[in-house]
Amino acid sequence: MIGGGQGAFIGAVHRIAAQLDGAYELVCGAFSSNPEKSKASGMLLGLSPERVYSSYQELFGKEQLLPEEERVQVISIVTPNHVHFEPARLALRNGFHVVLDKPMTFSLEEALELRKIAAASGKRFCLTHTYTGYPMVKEARQLVASGKLGKIRKVYVEYPQGWLSRFEEGGDNKQAGWRTDPDQSGIAGAMGDIGTHAFNLAEYVSGLQVTKLCADINIVVEGRRLDDDGAVLLKFNNGASGVLMATQVAAGEENNIKIRVYGEHGGVEWQQQDANSLLVKWLDRPAEIHRTGTGYVSSYAQHNSRTPAGHPEGYLEAFANLYRNFALCIKADLEGKEPQPEWQDYPGIEEGVRGMAFIEQVIASGRSEQKWIDFTV
Amino acid sequence: MIGGGQGAFIGAVHRIAAQLDGAYELVCGAFSSNPEKSKASGMLLGLSPERVYSSYQELFGKEQLLPEEERVQVISIVTPNHVHFEPARLALRNGFHVVLDKPMTFSLEEALELRKIAAASGKRFCLTHTYTGYPMVKEARQLVASGKLGKIRKVYVEYPQGWLSRFEEGGDNKQAGWRTDPDQSGIAGAMGDIGTHAFNLAEYVSGLQVTKLCADINIVVEGRRLDDDGAVLLKFNNGASGVLMATQVAAGEENNIKIRVYGEHGGVEWQQQDANSLLVKWLDRPAEIHRTGTGYVSSYAQHNSRTPAGHPEGYLEAFANLYRNFALCIKADLEGKEPQPEWQDYPGIEEGVRGMAFIEQVIASGRSEQKWIDFTV
Amino acid sequence: MIGGGQGAFIGAVHRIAAQLDGAYELVCGAFSSNPEKSKASGMLLGLSPERVYSSYQELFGKEQLLPEEERVQVISIVTPNHVHFEPARLALRNGFHVVLDKPMTFSLEEALELRKIAAASGKRFCLTHTYTGYPMVKEARQLVASGKLGKIRKVYVEYPQGWLSRFEEGGDNKQAGWRTDPDQSGIAGAMGDIGTHAFNLAEYVSGLQVTKLCADINIVVEGRRLDDDGAVLLKFNNGASGVLMATQVAAGEENNIKIRVYGEHGGVEWQQQDANSLLVKWLDRPAEIHRTGTGYVSSYAQHNSRTPAGHPEGYLEAFANLYRNFALCIKADLEGKEPQPEWQDYPGIEEGVRGMAFIEQVIASGRSEQKWIDFTV
Amino acid sequence: MIGGGQGAFIGAVHRIAAQLDGAYELVCGAFSSNPEKSKASGMLLGLSPERVYSSYQELFGKEQLLPEEERVQVISIVTPNHVHFEPARLALRNGFHVVLDKPMTFSLEEALELRKIAAASGKRFCLTHTYTGYPMVKEARQLVASGKLGKIRKVYVEYPQGWLSRFEEGGDNKQAGWRTDPDQSGIAGAMGDIGTHAFNLAEYVSGLQVTKLCADINIVVEGRRLDDDGAVLLKFNNGASGVLMATQVAAGEENNIKIRVYGEHGGVEWQQQDANSLLVKWLDRPAEIHRTGTGYVSSYAQHNSRTPAGHPEGYLEAFANLYRNFALCIKADLEGKEPQPEWQDYPGIEEGVRGMAFIEQVIASGRSEQKWIDFTV
Repeated sequence: MIGGGQGAFIGAVHRIAAQLDGAYELVCGAFSSNPEKSKASGMLLGLSPERVYSSYQELFGKEQLLPEEERVQVISIVTPNHVHFEPARLALRNGFHVVLDKPMTFSLEEALELRKIAAASGKRFCLTHTYTGYPMVKEARQLVASGKLGKIRKVYVEYPQGWLSRFEEGGDNKQAGWRTDPDQSGIAGAMGDIGTHAFNLAEYVSGLQVTKLCADINIVVEGRRLDDDGAVLLKFNNGASGVLMATQVAAGEENNIKIRVYGEHGGVEWQQQDANSLLVKWLDRPAEIHRTGTGYVSSYAQHNSRTPAGHPEGYLEAFANLYRNFALCIKADLEGKEPQPEWQDYPGIEEGVRGMAFIEQVIASGRSEQKWIDFTV
Repeated sequence: MIGGGQGAFIGAVHRIAAQLDGAYELVCGAFSSNPEKSKASGMLLGLSPERVYSSYQELFGKEQLLPEEERVQVISIVTPNHVHFEPARLALRNGFHVVLDKPMTFSLEEALELRKIAAASGKRFCLTHTYTGYPMVKEARQLVASGKLGKIRKVYVEYPQGWLSRFEEGGDNKQAGWRTDPDQSGIAGAMGDIGTHAFNLAEYVSGLQVTKLCADINIVVEGRRLDDDGAVLLKFNNGASGVLMATQVAAGEENNIKIRVYGEHGGVEWQQQDANSLLVKWLDRPAEIHRTGTGYVSSYAQHNSRTPAGHPEGYLEAFANLYRNFALCIKADLEGKEPQPEWQDYPGIEEGVRGMAFIEQVIASGRSEQKWIDFTV
Repeated sequence: MIGGGQGAFIGAVHRIAAQLDGAYELVCGAFSSNPEKSKASGMLLGLSPERVYSSYQELFGKEQLLPEEERVQVISIVTPNHVHFEPARLALRNGFHVVLDKPMTFSLEEALELRKIAAASGKRFCLTHTYTGYPMVKEARQLVASGKLGKIRKVYVEYPQGWLSRFEEGGDNKQAGWRTDPDQSGIAGAMGDIGTHAFNLAEYVSGLQVTKLCADINIVVEGRRLDDDGAVLLKFNNGASGVLMATQVAAGEENNIKIRVYGEHGGVEWQQQDANSLLVKWLDRPAEIHRTGTGYVSSYAQHNSRTPAGHPEGYLEAFANLYRNFALCIKADLEGKEPQPEWQDYPGIEEGVRGMAFIEQVIASGRSEQKWIDFTV
Repeated sequence: MIGGGQGAFIGAVHRIAAQLDGAYELVCGAFSSNPEKSKASGMLLGLSPERVYSSYQELFGKEQLLPEEERVQVISIVTPNHVHFEPARLALRNGFHVVLDKPMTFSLEEALELRKIAAASGKRFCLTHTYTGYPMVKEARQLVASGKLGKIRKVYVEYPQGWLSRFEEGGDNKQAGWRTDPDQSGIAGAMGDIGTHAFNLAEYVSGLQVTKLCADINIVVEGRRLDDDGAVLLKFNNGASGVLMATQVAAGEENNIKIRVYGEHGGVEWQQQDANSLLVKWLDRPAEIHRTGTGYVSSYAQHNSRTPAGHPEGYLEAFANLYRNFALCIKADLEGKEPQPEWQDYPGIEEGVRGMAFIEQVIASGRSEQKWIDFTV
């Protein structure tokens, strides 16, 4: 693991997610750019001192010298955005599979470069768009893909948060600090942090691709340096239209990411706050509630749950699904088998590139007087 | 009553709403442009045959000749949009108070003219933006107005329907027929029919005014002549931004109009599907559920309910609140008293003019390559 | 109307319910046992002074002398329980149809007597168990009756209120006063006031009859003279079992009456707080949400709604459904036609007798050391 | 770990729960009474072959011989009920801490014996009443304990399931098999399996103890040997009353355990289906929604969550909270420190004894003609 030392948020989540199904063991790490903090974090995590490194460069250098059966296999990178590309590049170049937190890189340019490197490496790459790991999100995607809803016409996706309603970066809120700092986050704030999740969820569930967008991007809180709010009109490659809303200043909102997709015959609706239910609406008959853990849901939904229906599976389980599927594919590769389609259903390099293109173009649109901007990668 | 003959939908709703609290009596009508149908409808409603008229022109002509104590006092106009202006004009000119279904007129030009006529008439005018009649919508407006949420930053309003997912106007669906016909509806379909409700609700609850907009307006169903879908980015006069979504092709949706307004310290959320609850969210403390019929809600909310908390009040009661408040004001006027502020809280001519401006400008924006269009009246 | 003068609650509800669909006109009344109060109430309601009576005895005496076409046809009795039997008896004896508020009488003895009188009178009788008027309650009953859920096994019904959490009858709360007074209410408090509603709803939806019960009946608030809380184990005539819970001391609860009925293959769940949805659960497939105003619900549900799906219909509309169906039957009788089955679906004398038997036996069980008591009428 | 081999359900849940926070490592096991199956299960779990034992007796015998730093410290017992007492006894006698699945033993007699053994052993003991591990259940308990709701008057607890609606034990459903078999489950079916959870939750949240009960216990599905349904009237030691409902034949229900507790001033409501919300109702002011992961909830709720508000924590996290608190206490003991009160808040031997007393007495009551039975331990 690279990053995720004491005080970090997402690093701990990655560790739980990886270990939850017993498919990974944490063996080494460079947990901080501060060597002492890295050491201290490694101790707390119970690692062998010699495998707690002072930097990711040292990690790659020394792990490579270990015998193959001891050597780390998968590198999780959970640093702020400006320290995504270089460790990912080194990991792939040095023959490690990579799990990388989103957004993929600091810039689209880096993303395109990383795509080349990943392709050349032959290694597997997972980008942690967590929400696609929920069983009922997978059920939604499968329902759309089945054609039962008919041609898709409308996509609404939203991610309202309220935690940046005040100038939190003025104090000692570490999460607020780096996420609102252009030197660490890149050109986007809310759009990079949560807008990319909403964008990815929209494309994942609908099975469509955005082709045009028109954005209203705002800095609401005085003194903030990056956007904390935005709304985007979308056009998709089949002619459908949509709306994406992401904000960090909706005071009182938690993390209630929600998606609705409508086709000719019906629609699906999912929100994180009721993560184990998928509402399926029909034009001429009663709406249905599809539930995690039941026997009637798709193989994709069934594969990604652990407990009988009614025992809620949450965010950590969704996150763990990404790690588990990634591990199942790596294992199948090692055994020379074709991974099952359900296992291959995790976000990767293409999702990362599209996410970075979204960031660049949504910010450009926000600054533009032109209504529609073509979405291109 | 003008319009609302057999087969009409909204006419029956107006009649129930008017009678629900016993403040109105239906005494005369011109229920259809077809004299025979008007007569038949009047019979069914139990009116004296001599006060069932063949046309609204006849109604005004003959009612004026009646002694004052017999003469109708309030004219309800529930015809399609293209027959709003003329009967409203005649009613006001002839000294009657007017209740008019929305949108106010066929065009903005007519609306501006009607505003002048209404001002000159000294008569009261109510436009039936029903949703503002719900007790919990009033509670939301009062909470915003109280300043407890702080400065308003964000407004999300949506009105998803699914009933026009197919080419209904190809058959004998009378409602679909006129609502998708430019000759009867005007330049807008969904935007006029339900977009104006959403627009009005946004301005009503937030207490703000839209100053700019950027619209994506679509005809989704093949062969349709007016828009059946749209999404609009909004800017408000205090610097807040917002999103308005209205669609008639969200298959499986009913009439779930919903609004969310966020300020610096918290937000309010209301939707018609759970009409007797107002969710009030706070930045640093638990969300609250304000409920119709309780003792702790604002005087505006209390005044507009009839039953103890927990006995749901619905759409007809919300509609009746408009009629009741209108009657209370007329009665106070007659008695030479100042109507209470709670009674005066019904939508009128200004809301009608702004609604027609919304229709004109949202359609213009939909056709424009320019991103933002100034909203002016 | 008998009772329902100024300050009364349920009288106003009856008046709105009766008038809502335009099928009734209020023509006369004895609104209070206090003649002056009766007069004043009648004035406010706009009645002819000569038809506002000082007592119900006077009402029956004088109305009978009127020509048939002027004479009142239906008597609504909305007095406290101890003034139910005598006016109902006189009304039926004098040839009027009767709408009576629940519980039917002061004692089971009176109820049995009234049954005989009603049978002999040939007049129609409606007991206002309002909750059976909701479209989705009717949908639930029809679904059970259709056999789709299989044999019914389990019935849970509950009516939690909180309004008597304090000793309200110690102050000037008129509603609390008579409802907790044995001289006006009878032997039961909560069990008579809301327990009978729950009992009726359970039998109505399940289509079953209670055969045994075992009750825990409590007076929770110090100084109260009648029960304010209770829970009852039930056995039904097909072998199913159930639980009935009714309380007036669940602080914070409004009027959230709720029922769940389970059969071999699935179950139905309805609660007043979400009155326009019926949750239908299935053993092996997704739960469905049946909604008021849709095209796919039963003829009984469709007949009892007025507005398109998504526009909520509430308590007053449910109440109005009772009055409307009663009027439709009376009208059919007058026209010598067979009323449609949907019209005949209103609660009557049998429901009243069973409700009074419930009161007597549930209170007896509460006092008994014996576990199960046979439910007999 | 003892039990939890291939095909078992709860064993896998225990393993995830234990490992989720990184506080436990699985080092040895006797996963099945079938030695080969135990070996195979151990292999799959990646254990050293020499620490996968053929029986729990062998496990205790051999682990004791290992040096203290290698030896297992905590024994998880996840076998069917009839194999709870003996391994728990041996574990405690041999100096191991014990985590035991509920219900604690096969009979009350065994439970009382185990209590003595546990007391004598000086070892820690945890009984996995999972639902008490949810942050919002802890919040509910703390709110009641704070006195803000006033004296508790009413407790409703329910656990509806539908999975035994058919004669599942007639097929190869292993879970249905042992849970309906008196030789493996004991004298109770549903009452032991889920009734004990409901009973424990009621006492945990209310802070009260049951003193009397009156039960209706049923076998609904033909051919079944143990109860699959029941409802129980309860009396508590402060005079409050309550109802407990537990059923396995509510077709269409999943595992929606729910509790409501009302005091003089308000009530709390929690259900597993919306596990991260606690509804707090007040007599005279708006209901509140307390949420997992927020800053305003009690220290007990905060301590038992991992992710920011809005990222749902589910059943596995609730289960993990039991394991984590148990580990924190053991660690504190080892370090000679007093464990924090929040850590000590896990269910133990007393809860187990009361659960077994509940089973014995609820079944006795079900068979009795006497109404109330004293609840004694």
